[in-house]
Amino acid sequence: MALGSGYDKQDCTVARALEVVGERWTLLIVRDLFLGVRRFSDLQARLDISKGVLTERLNHLVDRGVVAKLEGAGHPEYELTPAGIALHPVLMALSAWGRQYANPEQRPSRVLTHLCGTPLDEAARCPTCDVTPPPGDVVSTPDPENPGRRTDPVSIALRRPHRLLEPVRG
Amino acid sequence: MALGSGYDKQDCTVARALEVVGERWTLLIVRDLFLGVRRFSDLQARLDISKGVLTERLNHLVDRGVVAKLEGAGHPEYELTPAGIALHPVLMALSAWGRQYANPEQRPSRVLTHLCGTPLDEAARCPTCDVTPPPGDVVSTPDPENPGRRTDPVSIALRRPHRLLEPVRG
Repeated sequence: MALGSGYDKQDCTVARALEVVGERWTLLIVRDLFLGVRRFSDLQARLDISKGVLTERLNHLVDRGVVAKLEGAGHPEYELTPAGIALHPVLMALSAWGRQYANPEQRPSRVLTHLCGTPLDEAARCPTCDVTPPPGDVVSTPDPENPGRRTDPVSIALRRPHRLLEPVRG
Repeated sequence: MALGSGYDKQDCTVARALEVVGERWTLLIVRDLFLGVRRFSDLQARLDISKGVLTERLNHLVDRGVVAKLEGAGHPEYELTPAGIALHPVLMALSAWGRQYANPEQRPSRVLTHLCGTPLDEAARCPTCDVTPPPGDVVSTPDPENPGRRTDPVSIALRRPHRLLEPVRG
């Protein structure tokens, strides 16, 4: 990395957070883990990066306690730890900003709704229930008229409404 | 950039946001603009990057409508546009996460308080007034026992309580 990967001299909690999740693609890996994608091969099918970069990013997230690697009978699986699940407000804030400012012409391919059925507002709150639901109570609901361009098996599976963190496999 | 700077094939508003603010150092530049740092030389003194990288990052933020470059009599100054100010929840969420999970042993060098004097909670709300204050109503209050290690004039000036977005110069 031309710029180094740390922000050692920055006295700031934003810099500390970016040392963990600030590398390119890392927050998109975390987004997919929230969507329940757990296998390396499924993550790779969803993300436009090499095996080497995905491995490096996942290892860093495991080292920093954000992701757990579960060695099972077959493929290892990756899941967010409590520290990883605590990144939900970061992703919600980035998503709300991206929707409004980064490319407002592009219609989002999914909306997030509370279990009660109400779409979350810009601050990731359910206006009907007046709560900020934890990610396990949030449902990713694809827009049927704009289901997204990806055609790998996991992306197809994610075209159905799907609770965050609920495992999905290709 | 080995990985390219876009996320063209990612159907996702998080990816759209990261195309604007996801490069290394960019969110720390935005953090300093929230703190009122406006001059190129002051930003450079606060950030551990070259003039070339800072120029590239600022130009990208200007191109994407996040930062305005004000050409005055002397030095040009940079300030956040409304789209830039709308990034406040992103920085608040990253900061809260960094404080709790990225290096909990490190005491933050500043706390953010509402104008009423109450420290903001983890969700950047004022629990006394039950509002999420806009950044102009937030005061950065350095910890007197842990004022930070940087000794450039702007960092010294920022050791006094300081409203966000209020210009500060070295």
